[in-house]
Amino acid sequence: MRILRFTRPDTPEAQPEIGIQIQDPSGDLVVPLSAVAPDAPQDMIALIAGWDAIAPQLADAASHRAQALPLVDLTLAAPVPNPQKILAIGLNYADHIEETGLPTPTNQLWFSKLPNAVNAPHGDIELPRTGTQMDWEVEMVAVIGKGGRHISAAEAPAHVFGYAVGNDVSMRDWQMKTPQWILGKSFDTHAPFGPAIVTADEIGDPHGLDITCSVNGEMRQSSNTRHLLFSVWDQIEELSRVMTLMPGDVIFTGTPGGVGMGMQPPVYLQPGDVVRCAISGLGAIENRVVAEG
Amino acid sequence: MRILRFTRPDTPEAQPEIGIQIQDPSGDLVVPLSAVAPDAPQDMIALIAGWDAIAPQLADAASHRAQALPLVDLTLAAPVPNPQKILAIGLNYADHIEETGLPTPTNQLWFSKLPNAVNAPHGDIELPRTGTQMDWEVEMVAVIGKGGRHISAAEAPAHVFGYAVGNDVSMRDWQMKTPQWILGKSFDTHAPFGPAIVTADEIGDPHGLDITCSVNGEMRQSSNTRHLLFSVWDQIEELSRVMTLMPGDVIFTGTPGGVGMGMQPPVYLQPGDVVRCAISGLGAIENRVVAEG
Repeated sequence: MRILRFTRPDTPEAQPEIGIQIQDPSGDLVVPLSAVAPDAPQDMIALIAGWDAIAPQLADAASHRAQALPLVDLTLAAPVPNPQKILAIGLNYADHIEETGLPTPTNQLWFSKLPNAVNAPHGDIELPRTGTQMDWEVEMVAVIGKGGRHISAAEAPAHVFGYAVGNDVSMRDWQMKTPQWILGKSFDTHAPFGPAIVTADEIGDPHGLDITCSVNGEMRQSSNTRHLLFSVWDQIEELSRVMTLMPGDVIFTGTPGGVGMGMQPPVYLQPGDVVRCAISGLGAIENRVVAEG
Repeated sequence: MRILRFTRPDTPEAQPEIGIQIQDPSGDLVVPLSAVAPDAPQDMIALIAGWDAIAPQLADAASHRAQALPLVDLTLAAPVPNPQKILAIGLNYADHIEETGLPTPTNQLWFSKLPNAVNAPHGDIELPRTGTQMDWEVEMVAVIGKGGRHISAAEAPAHVFGYAVGNDVSMRDWQMKTPQWILGKSFDTHAPFGPAIVTADEIGDPHGLDITCSVNGEMRQSSNTRHLLFSVWDQIEELSRVMTLMPGDVIFTGTPGGVGMGMQPPVYLQPGDVVRCAISGLGAIENRVVAEG
């Protein structure tokens, strides 16, 4: 199932609603959650937390086709607007490690993108007034379903609600200004993800997906999630040694080689640039760079 | 005004309510918010966000003394249970910098404690199964009132809702396992703060408060917030260059010298130890170390 959040073209200022994406010969459609399960929560975290009870009601979303809206007419919102935590792992693809010149980590290298950074799948990403070195990082994103602590790698698949495409937008000048990366990773608008959450049952093993990033149509990153140094399951095991993972928590699982910082000379994003991040089976997000107002 | 969250002795499992602490010859009392302003939200972030409209109703809390409860009978909860962000600054007192052996930062050194770490002012702090080097760090905590971006140091005082006492509990083995500190700072229960939020108008300039930490009654840290390397106002200016600060965001403003890691030989917390953190004008929090179950 593909779950997303959207606003309708006639009420762009309304609170986003939740919808289920279905296929149609005329193009993809979105069935509003309210049409299928009127009592289901319109809060994505609550929906995920109550998923086991709600999912059976959603299985026949396609039978509500008459109430569906064309996907192309909708404005998508971030699938989880208010995660309690956004965790992100650094240096998790061999070719990216090589381009940074840093040693291969023997331990998982975690940082956070703070929730103010959440952005829509097609939202503008801001080049802030206070920085210059804005870089792209396509990443597969995992969204936690059933929370917990001390989740083993073997148990981890049962704790993933689904997957999405993310861009771990990074201000390199701020990331490197101190030894702690968090400020450079947490500018407003710098965590776009989506376009939907594709539920885990639809993906199966997430470690075989093509992952790409292009800037203004030129391919910059191209890899496959099979090259993850630490798998999604290892990541969940490690994080839950420390913290209780919660429904709706968002994990950015690492970026492959090809970031702007690694180019000779380095290339950074400028207003007007368009960054497109895509993963096979998950879709694509596309974000235009704008100067902060 | 001193705002806190509490449960009553007869309903310890109920959702905590908000209260206003008042003085009384018989000992401090807590007036339930519901007695003074029945329509005010019981969510602390909503209360802070709507503070300008609500504060006038609370000014005569003391006239509701008949409905007040003795503070000593109550169990206190974390003043903000669900902040969007917990920011924490490292190496922000000269004597603490000296004991770490690290150079004095020329830029503010920020990390985060993730919200799963929030704990009550007298909550047990867990020595996790997965680590050993558990350390104390008393800190003054600032709670954001009016949010915003690009807040100058001069404007910053108007954006602080109030202050509390915090303990930035740190697992040194995890903090030093990789270059990024966040996992070592974000174990469940490792961000106790309180006992109340003392509103900013009651404190005035927060840069002249005695700050202490004792372990099992032995003084370990003793300083004054006038020794902050970067002031609270500088901190808000720097953070808001990056991110929109929100009502209820929590800022741990740095710890003075005297942590366990700096002792010769290093001393770490063990089950049964009691850590008491106190700041003049703000009160004290006290947390017992327990082995994770």
